[in-house]
Formats: sequence, C-alpha cells, structure tokens
Amino acid sequence: MSPQNYSLSKPWNVNSLTLEQFMVENQYDPSMFQALIFCPLCPLPINKMVFQLLPCLKVVVTTSTGVNHIDLSECQCRGIQVANVGSLYSEDVADVAVALLIGVLTSIVAADRFVRATMQFDFPQASYSKIVLSDFVGFFDILRALVKDIKSSRFEALAWKVAKRLEAFGCIILYLSRKKKPFITYPFYSNMLELASNSDALVLCCPLNEETRHMVNKEVMLALGNKGVIVNVGRWSLIDEELVNCLIEGHIGGAGLDVFENEPNVPQQLLVLDNVILSPHNAAFTNETFMAATQLVEDNLEAFFSNKSPVTPIKLN
Amino acid sequence: MSPQNYSLSKPWNVNSLTLEQFMVENQYDPSMFQALIFCPLCPLPINKMVFQLLPCLKVVVTTSTGVNHIDLSECQCRGIQVANVGSLYSEDVADVAVALLIGVLTSIVAADRFVRATMQFDFPQASYSKIVLSDFVGFFDILRALVKDIKSSRFEALAWKVAKRLEAFGCIILYLSRKKKPFITYPFYSNMLELASNSDALVLCCPLNEETRHMVNKEVMLALGNKGVIVNVGRWSLIDEELVNCLIEGHIGGAGLDVFENEPNVPQQLLVLDNVILSPHNAAFTNETFMAATQLVEDNLEAFFSNKSPVTPIKLN
Repeated sequence: MSPQNYSLSKPWNVNSLTLEQFMVENQYDPSMFQALIFCPLCPLPINKMVFQLLPCLKVVVTTSTGVNHIDLSECQCRGIQVANVGSLYSEDVADVAVALLIGVLTSIVAADRFVRATMQFDFPQASYSKIVLSDFVGFFDILRALVKDIKSSRFEALAWKVAKRLEAFGCIILYLSRKKKPFITYPFYSNMLELASNSDALVLCCPLNEETRHMVNKEVMLALGNKGVIVNVGRWSLIDEELVNCLIEGHIGGAGLDVFENEPNVPQQLLVLDNVILSPHNAAFTNETFMAATQLVEDNLEAFFSNKSPVTPIKLN
Repeated sequence: MSPQNYSLSKPWNVNSLTLEQFMVENQYDPSMFQALIFCPLCPLPINKMVFQLLPCLKVVVTTSTGVNHIDLSECQCRGIQVANVGSLYSEDVADVAVALLIGVLTSIVAADRFVRATMQFDFPQASYSKIVLSDFVGFFDILRALVKDIKSSRFEALAWKVAKRLEAFGCIILYLSRKKKPFITYPFYSNMLELASNSDALVLCCPLNEETRHMVNKEVMLALGNKGVIVNVGRWSLIDEELVNCLIEGHIGGAGLDVFENEPNVPQQLLVLDNVILSPHNAAFTNETFMAATQLVEDNLEAFFSNKSPVTPIKLN
C-alpha cells in the first residue's frame, strides 16, 4: 500500500495483546484512528468495546466476505461505514466447495491416506462406497440475510457459481430462499427440512446471522440421511453442534468443512473420521486473490479518505 | 448371474496359482472353456500362453475399459472376440479426474493432512499457493488408439465429460489428437510438446498402446512447467518414469494419480509428497457401476452363447 491521504499504524496483533494494551504500549492517541482494517484470521468481535476505545472510528474495512464478527447495529448507531471484499472470493470458494463435495463423495482424502499408510492397496478394501455424483441432488442455500438489507449478493453469487459447476457433473440443483427468485429456474424451497428430505447434499453458501444460525439442525441432518453430505464454506454455526455426533454415528454420510467454531482449533473428534475432509479455512487463499484483496482494502480506504463511497460497502440501515 | 446357455467355472485366483496349476488342480479339461471373464484387479497379460492353455477360447470379456493387458493381435489371429465395458465407467472416472485435478490445485489432501496432524491450523502456514482454477488452461487428450480401429470412443467420451465439467470452472480446454475433429470446437493440437507449453494441466484420458506409451515424457513435463498439474486416470505408462523425479524436484507442480505401474504397489517416493494425490485405482468403483458392470459381463456372455455380437465389442481387424 502507498497511502496518500492517510498513514497506517503498527499492526495490532490480536493474539498477544488486547486493543487497550496495544494502544497503551504504543502510546497511541485514540482520536488519531479513523479507520480500522480487520483481517479476521482469528475473528475477534468488532463491537462496542472496540468502538469505545477508538471513539473517532468512521470506517471498518474487513478483508473477509462475512461480517458476522462486526456489530453492524452499533456501526449504524455511530455512523461507522463498513466495507468487506464484496464477491472477490466467490470463484475460489466455489472451487473449494465443489472440491470438498466431490472429495467427500469420492473419498479422495481417505483413499489417499489409505494408500500412504499401506504403501500398496488392496482393491476390495479400496472400493469405497460412494454416491454416484450424477445421481445426487445438490442443494444450494441462497437465503438472504434477514438483518435488513445487508447485501448478501456475494453469497448468492457464490451459490450460483457452485451450482453452475455442479450442474456440469449432472447434479440436479434445488435452492432455499425466503422468496422464490424469478431469475432462478432451479426448484425452489422455503422449508429447510423439506429441502433436506429431497437432497443428497447440502452446500452452505449463506452468511451467518440470527436467522441462519443452526439452520442445519439435527432434524435437518436426519432428513438428509445417512448417505447425505454437507459442505460448509460459510461459518461453522450455520450447522448445529450435533454435526459432530451425526458424523460419528453415521446419521449423515460425510462432510467437507472449511470453517470451524473455535478457529484455528478443530474439534478433536473430527480428526479420526474418514467421512470428513478438513480444510483449514483457506478456500479463498490463493496468491492472486490475496493480492486482489489487499488492493481492494486500499481502494476502500482511498475512497473513504477522499470522501467517496466505499467500493464494496455493507449497507447498514 | 444366472446363465442359461453356459456354466461358470470356479474362479481362477490369479494371485496364488498360475493358470496351468489352476487347471490341473481342478482337473479341468482345457477344451471345455470357450469364454474367459477377466477382472483385471491385478492385470495379468492375456497372451499367447493363456490362449495355448485354453485352446477352445472364443471370447474374452474384460471388466475393464482398457484392453492393454490383452494381446489383441493374437486374439485376431485365433478368431477370439474381445468385449470390454464400453463407456460404462466414464461418468465416474470423469468425476474422479476432476476431483483429482481440483484436489491437487487446492491442496485439499495436504491441507486435510496438515489439520489432522496439528489439530489446529496456523493460517499463514495453511495458505497454500494454489493456481486459480478459473485461469488455467485444461488439456484433454483424446488421441485415438493407433492400433488400427480399436474403438477408443470411451476415452473420447471420458475426455468430453471431463472437459464439460471443467468448463463450468471457467477452464479453457485444448485437445490433442492425430486429426482435428470437426465436431469439437476446442483449440486443436497435434503436437504434445506444443500443447503442454500452452497448458497448466494435463488430464490423461487416453488408452495405453504403443503410440501413447510415455507420451508425457520429461520434455513434456518441463514444458508444462513447475506449476503444471498432471492427472492420470488412464494407465501409469502414459507418463514416463521421470514423473516421480519431476514431482520430487518440482519440475511440475503436482499430480493426481489413480493408476500406478505395479499395482497394487505404489512407488514409495510418492508417499511423502504433498503435491500428489494418490487414488487407489478406484475411480470407477461405485456400487452402482459395479452392479452395472456385472450385468454387462453377463449380457456379453449371453450374446456370445446365443451367437450374437457382443454388446460392447473391441473391434479387431
């Protein structure tokens, strides 16, 4: 970055110091900060406490797509603008979502582990039962965020991109939404349970908010069935904690997970499961996208400090 | 199977007994065998020696797609018909080919191994450099078998299905063939080296024969480059043995391998590589396909013993 209208402070390492300690240690005057760049590798809440410590904050720029770590109501009250990365990651995340789904269905990771462990393969043992991809019914949630007017266009774009990829595998696509969308021709469902009953796979592409939290509960997983697969590239809490037990007990067939509850920690019970692929929340971490995200953060800051609208704003109202 | 016009002998376990020992041990009269069903889990050559031991053989039915283990010239000389499984496996194999390619590009297996080993992930470490799928140029070999008139339509169908899937990821598809095919609109190449220079990934969907053996040699791999990925769902020997060194030394970026030279053994040097996915030649091993293949073998035998043409013949002439 080569800022013209602003200067960057030393980065706050969220792991070792609280924001308060960081400010004191660096002898920063709180009133000097107008913008906060947040790179949520270990997402800490951007909440009232942060805003109290940075009273002159006017913009929060997050390098993530999801904004569930930001108290948007509080931002709105304080007139703080919020910018995310828009739909920047959707191509990469769609690639990984499909890789996870096909990967689980074809047991690609378990098979590789098996070969590496045995140094040879015994064909009958290697004959994992897998669902024929062409026969399964994919499901792509494109539920809009209920938090009014938050733009979830990225998530829709993501679901759309995942759907287009899986169509090429012969998948039949269904979708869940609050309202039928006239421009989408896939069969529409408004009820999650009904949808899960008719699906062999659920791909969660939606933002996390109070409406979507635990939208995939135990009942939904039982409806999906013991051959059903769940892919989560959104946030862990879209699925109820029962997921782990359902995987262990075989109530569902498998899962491809790029997100976890207490990242970077992964539930220990998942580590021994062959029906799970564990991806370290790196769906969007390509070199190209990393560079593009850095540029987008700079563009959003330049816009703010030039009194223009953010390039990729989160609408608050 | 419930044969009407024929009876099945005890299966010959190719691992423990030679065919000669098997015949003697079971006190079989060689002249009683007109058909040989071959399930090439450990592909043994079906050659002159086999035909000498079974002098009345009139048909070989293999449960594989590839027929490189069968001496076709000898079959032709002796008037022995050959049937394979046609294009039965192409959907499943296309799924796995794409899973391997995306899997290597997104480091899905290495990432899972990393998470399982560390029980948590350190984001920067987990940030594998990967090729953005949407930017790469896929290549699908649909080279026709030079052994005159052997039907390689299955391989073409496979390449086509792989191409259609990857198109949905935004891949640009090129193809190699002896002659330009009027019905294929992808850019055509007749020179392997030239094609590899213009590709980021090679997906080998072609049959193994004297023309295609080692078609991907070291020069081709160097042309593909250190970010290039090779997927092999055909036969190991389509690629020169230099593959292992090229992977170790980083001359190519990675490989997704479903086939190996001395199956079921896997080269030990591959076991420690993070840029490789090892799949135990199970691309076609879904339950559904296994049942369908069993039925197809039965159909081919029924046809033969009813003096009809095989359902899925290999053309010999």
